[in-house]
Amino acid sequence: MAVPPSTYPRRLLPLFLGLFQAALLLFFALFVTYDKPSAQVEDTSLVANQVYSTFPFFQDIQVMLVVGLGLLLTFLPRYRFSSLTHNFLLLNFSMQWALVLQGLLHHFHHGQIHLDLHKLLISEFAAVTVLISVGAILGRASPCQLLVMATCEIPIYLASEWVIVTCLGVLDVGGTITIHIFSCYFGLGVSKALFRATQQPPHPKETPTPSSDLFSLLGTLILWVFWPSFVAVLCQPGDAQHRAILNTLLAMSASAITTVVASSLLERDGKLSPGHLQNGSLAGGVAIGAVADMAVPPVAALALGSLSAVLCVLGFRFLTPLLGRKLALHDQCGIHNLHGLPGILGAAASVVAVLVASKDITGSQPSQPSPAGGNASEVVEGQWGGRGAGGQALCQAAGLAVAVGASLLAGLLTGAALRLPSLARPPERLCFDDSLYFKIQDQAESAGPDSSAEEGALALKEHV
Amino acid sequence: MAVPPSTYPRRLLPLFLGLFQAALLLFFALFVTYDKPSAQVEDTSLVANQVYSTFPFFQDIQVMLVVGLGLLLTFLPRYRFSSLTHNFLLLNFSMQWALVLQGLLHHFHHGQIHLDLHKLLISEFAAVTVLISVGAILGRASPCQLLVMATCEIPIYLASEWVIVTCLGVLDVGGTITIHIFSCYFGLGVSKALFRATQQPPHPKETPTPSSDLFSLLGTLILWVFWPSFVAVLCQPGDAQHRAILNTLLAMSASAITTVVASSLLERDGKLSPGHLQNGSLAGGVAIGAVADMAVPPVAALALGSLSAVLCVLGFRFLTPLLGRKLALHDQCGIHNLHGLPGILGAAASVVAVLVASKDITGSQPSQPSPAGGNASEVVEGQWGGRGAGGQALCQAAGLAVAVGASLLAGLLTGAALRLPSLARPPERLCFDDSLYFKIQDQAESAGPDSSAEEGALALKEHV
Amino acid sequence: MAVPPSTYPRRLLPLFLGLFQAALLLFFALFVTYDKPSAQVEDTSLVANQVYSTFPFFQDIQVMLVVGLGLLLTFLPRYRFSSLTHNFLLLNFSMQWALVLQGLLHHFHHGQIHLDLHKLLISEFAAVTVLISVGAILGRASPCQLLVMATCEIPIYLASEWVIVTCLGVLDVGGTITIHIFSCYFGLGVSKALFRATQQPPHPKETPTPSSDLFSLLGTLILWVFWPSFVAVLCQPGDAQHRAILNTLLAMSASAITTVVASSLLERDGKLSPGHLQNGSLAGGVAIGAVADMAVPPVAALALGSLSAVLCVLGFRFLTPLLGRKLALHDQCGIHNLHGLPGILGAAASVVAVLVASKDITGSQPSQPSPAGGNASEVVEGQWGGRGAGGQALCQAAGLAVAVGASLLAGLLTGAALRLPSLARPPERLCFDDSLYFKIQDQAESAGPDSSAEEGALALKEHV
Repeated sequence: MAVPPSTYPRRLLPLFLGLFQAALLLFFALFVTYDKPSAQVEDTSLVANQVYSTFPFFQDIQVMLVVGLGLLLTFLPRYRFSSLTHNFLLLNFSMQWALVLQGLLHHFHHGQIHLDLHKLLISEFAAVTVLISVGAILGRASPCQLLVMATCEIPIYLASEWVIVTCLGVLDVGGTITIHIFSCYFGLGVSKALFRATQQPPHPKETPTPSSDLFSLLGTLILWVFWPSFVAVLCQPGDAQHRAILNTLLAMSASAITTVVASSLLERDGKLSPGHLQNGSLAGGVAIGAVADMAVPPVAALALGSLSAVLCVLGFRFLTPLLGRKLALHDQCGIHNLHGLPGILGAAASVVAVLVASKDITGSQPSQPSPAGGNASEVVEGQWGGRGAGGQALCQAAGLAVAVGASLLAGLLTGAALRLPSLARPPERLCFDDSLYFKIQDQAESAGPDSSAEEGALALKEHV
Repeated sequence: MAVPPSTYPRRLLPLFLGLFQAALLLFFALFVTYDKPSAQVEDTSLVANQVYSTFPFFQDIQVMLVVGLGLLLTFLPRYRFSSLTHNFLLLNFSMQWALVLQGLLHHFHHGQIHLDLHKLLISEFAAVTVLISVGAILGRASPCQLLVMATCEIPIYLASEWVIVTCLGVLDVGGTITIHIFSCYFGLGVSKALFRATQQPPHPKETPTPSSDLFSLLGTLILWVFWPSFVAVLCQPGDAQHRAILNTLLAMSASAITTVVASSLLERDGKLSPGHLQNGSLAGGVAIGAVADMAVPPVAALALGSLSAVLCVLGFRFLTPLLGRKLALHDQCGIHNLHGLPGILGAAASVVAVLVASKDITGSQPSQPSPAGGNASEVVEGQWGGRGAGGQALCQAAGLAVAVGASLLAGLLTGAALRLPSLARPPERLCFDDSLYFKIQDQAESAGPDSSAEEGALALKEHV
Repeated sequence: MAVPPSTYPRRLLPLFLGLFQAALLLFFALFVTYDKPSAQVEDTSLVANQVYSTFPFFQDIQVMLVVGLGLLLTFLPRYRFSSLTHNFLLLNFSMQWALVLQGLLHHFHHGQIHLDLHKLLISEFAAVTVLISVGAILGRASPCQLLVMATCEIPIYLASEWVIVTCLGVLDVGGTITIHIFSCYFGLGVSKALFRATQQPPHPKETPTPSSDLFSLLGTLILWVFWPSFVAVLCQPGDAQHRAILNTLLAMSASAITTVVASSLLERDGKLSPGHLQNGSLAGGVAIGAVADMAVPPVAALALGSLSAVLCVLGFRFLTPLLGRKLALHDQCGIHNLHGLPGILGAAASVVAVLVASKDITGSQPSQPSPAGGNASEVVEGQWGGRGAGGQALCQAAGLAVAVGASLLAGLLTGAALRLPSLARPPERLCFDDSLYFKIQDQAESAGPDSSAEEGALALKEHV
């Protein structure tokens, strides 16, 4: 089962990446600079404080994306090295690409873009959408396809985020609508258009082993720990940020416990499914994003966490197989269950929260109860820009509609583009295998003397 | 070796957890709220500073408990998924349960409990006791038993902590007495009452493999790195916190090296035992907790670290087998060596430190040399609430006695309760096996074609 | 293949470490103390701020060294436990040893050394050199040899760092010259003198398995995430630190992508080499250190990252085999490719940056454009101590020469000392094997019933 040396498409990857990197260097040389050094002592102290307040959050998010998300994707036992590496490569590529586009769109003043940690952070958020979307087609797409997908997704995300946050004024500090829902339906659109009507047959290499399930759970736990930083990093310092942290902690704690309940009730013999645990425990973090910094009561965070975990487990148990059968929709990592369903729940919750918060104001509490926030805190004075609770609720719903619609459409188009033969989609029998892309001991031959036995048994399994 | 579908007790887990989660929602809906938003700008800045000063410590501790401690427990090669998941589940359950009880006991004002990050942190500390105690019976208890154990342990811990810290005024900023000693003897009590006089025979699945030892060591290293945050988070900012961090770093560094010395001297051929390294390296962190923020000289931290590592290794080598033979006391993870012996050493050190510190004051240094601290910094003015060094030393000793006595007694009672047949203790031959609780490829059948070989060989080992 | 119970040299390790630990206790008892508690409230607040600004960076660096670097070294499949443990042991030993020496040399006032977090951090930086150097001889040296190597390297590093930073005033905030270049050539010198002209034959146990490659990549990712903290921790707070963080992020992101390009172009069939990814992704962090806080434009950071990754991959592909053949130079982990080549590139970049920065000043920007920094920020006023750009550039080059020369010479001498028979270098057939030093199931016998199959297959490989 030797991998054929199809040399041509292999040259596409370094060509594409090399040209991109060269163009990036040129762009940076021409346009990007750092801020002038602060002239005065007070400014220096200000910059230092900004670094100390943002940098720890930033590092937490880097750990989530590079280590946590990477490990979460290692549940495919013979594709672990690829999952980690492709995730890492896509993060860097997408972040740089988003930096360029955002610089051109938003930060271009007098022919210069002033780079700072906040702009890097915003670009990293854009890159997250790619890392999530990839989950729908993980293991069946070539690195070139993934890079083209990232190239298409970043500008569409930026446009969609601009419409949702800037134009519609949607409140979504944790990215529930702008990031999770968008990337989920983009990924599903890509999957649908890429694989068309052909239902993907179960592949012998896609069954997790105890060891790969363990690695994936480790990724879940790392994501679970640092998720509050992801939700709270863009909040206004002070009460809003404090509340966002607490709400996220509560929601994720409820998710963890409810996932066990739901999985245990749904599975035969009451045994828990590793896949449910790996995903359901995080569902609360997805759902809480849109309301995390609002003046919602703590019980709402708990309820959102529980409900989203139930939805996630139900999705894995019933909806994913159903979509596979009826729509031939392939969702390798179950991103619809982790990002789609909890995301929609969170968006709906934000509509309710806005309506309820307004009642509270006109009712008991005369002092402004602060739904400050919104990705860039545009909406502070005069209660959501003078829009009124009903208007704001409508905007939240409109934002959801825009995110779903734009991402599905764009995903379908992108997926169609990925069918280009030159992008070298791997043939079915070579899917889910590190040895196609890495100089790793060929795991398919690993029953032979020069291999580890873990792989050997997997190989045996195919030959027997 | 199919697992029998004993459906009834399997339904107990979701029932118990589901009811608990529903009750929690009700409790939060009725009583729990966030603080009112700060009205003034200075307050906002204050809240922001509190978030920035506490949150990084909090995240470090979350990493310790969820990832580090979880991995430390994965030394049982076929029980790794269970160890990680049960640890994660118990942390969340215990934290929520402690939040409720602490709210009722301490923070109930005008019918409301105001939630903040500090209260979550305190609840997390309570949950740590459960995670430690579980180590005594890991692998031989069902999840239901563990949850019942947590349900009993949290209120007893809160009562014990109240007596020790609030009534006796014991200084114990890092939880040496209140957390480590308490949870160790509680766990041993549970183990004794649960397994009674029947000495647990060695189980074929409890021998670590090179791979499971590696995972466990990784957990140790993560705990080792973040331990200073655990000890210092509740210190008074400034000198006391700085000193607590330094003392912990020194103690743990000395532990790491002394463990190698001790293990190498005690083991045949001078080979190091993985178990010694995994536990001894952390002993210094346990011992230093009670004196970390006191004005002890740096050499004391080093000495404590070295001594506690020696005690820990000696405990593994001689005391655990002795207790097993003489008392039929089963201690799966050796919690008595990691938490019990170093804890008692640390408590003794705190007695000495209080006596010595008082001499220093009356002697050379007229300015108050600051044994500020104590879990809630109650004891600042007038030298330990006007108690005098002898009195305070007596209190430290009394705190140790209370912790040991209360936990042993309560542990024995709890262990007796865990013998209820409905809690479904797994039969001996199904212990230490993930496939009893998780839809993981049955590792016992894994020599067959559809399994990974790592497990396959383990299975072979039983069949051969 | 039983390991012979050569008892005598095994006793050397605990003897050496035990005596060292006793001497350390004595030294601390006599000379080391904490700062007096701050008398005033403002001082307390100052100390607290110092803790909050340094401690998170310190923890990040601990994670890098203990977990990240430890995992990076686990690519040797049967030597993983040893790699992690020896790395951990050497870090602690070297840090304590550096603390003593630095205390004696720099901080000895009125017979006392006042310990604080900053001094621990500086000692940790010294320990890093040992951890890097060890990479050259990993798996073929005994723990005693490694400890003797650390004992020799730390004082030489301190002398070299004193000459380079204090005497020559070299700017090197991220340790490119003082740490990376020094430790690389020290390690190569040791390797050359230890193994002499005998080319090391390929060993059956040194080939990575898919599983060990995965662990090693995980280490890379952890190092990659936290590297900015390593570079920026000693910068002046404010602009310089902000810039150092951004430059490091950009350089490492460029490295990650360029490594994929370079590896893909150089390898047969365009398959990526795991070794290239594990090392090349970090090359940018090594190279950026010397210029990270200077007023270089962002494009320079990107270019440095890309170039250093190319150098690193080329080094693995061509230079390491060449050095092996021509000079019989053995470099187990390829430290010359990760630390040597990118380090020299970074040092050269610092020469250019100094020259270019001076032009910018005399040209357009009259306000001082701040190449503040330098390990201890000695050089602030009057543009590099009134030395002028040409002089400073010359100093940077001189620093590079001192680092390479001193380390090579000292490394050769140290390596000769390591040939002492009493240090118990393991015989070739027992190299790369955990079971020589740890009570781990003998992996060579692991095809038998009581072993995991992963190891079993490896054993088979030898017997077949």
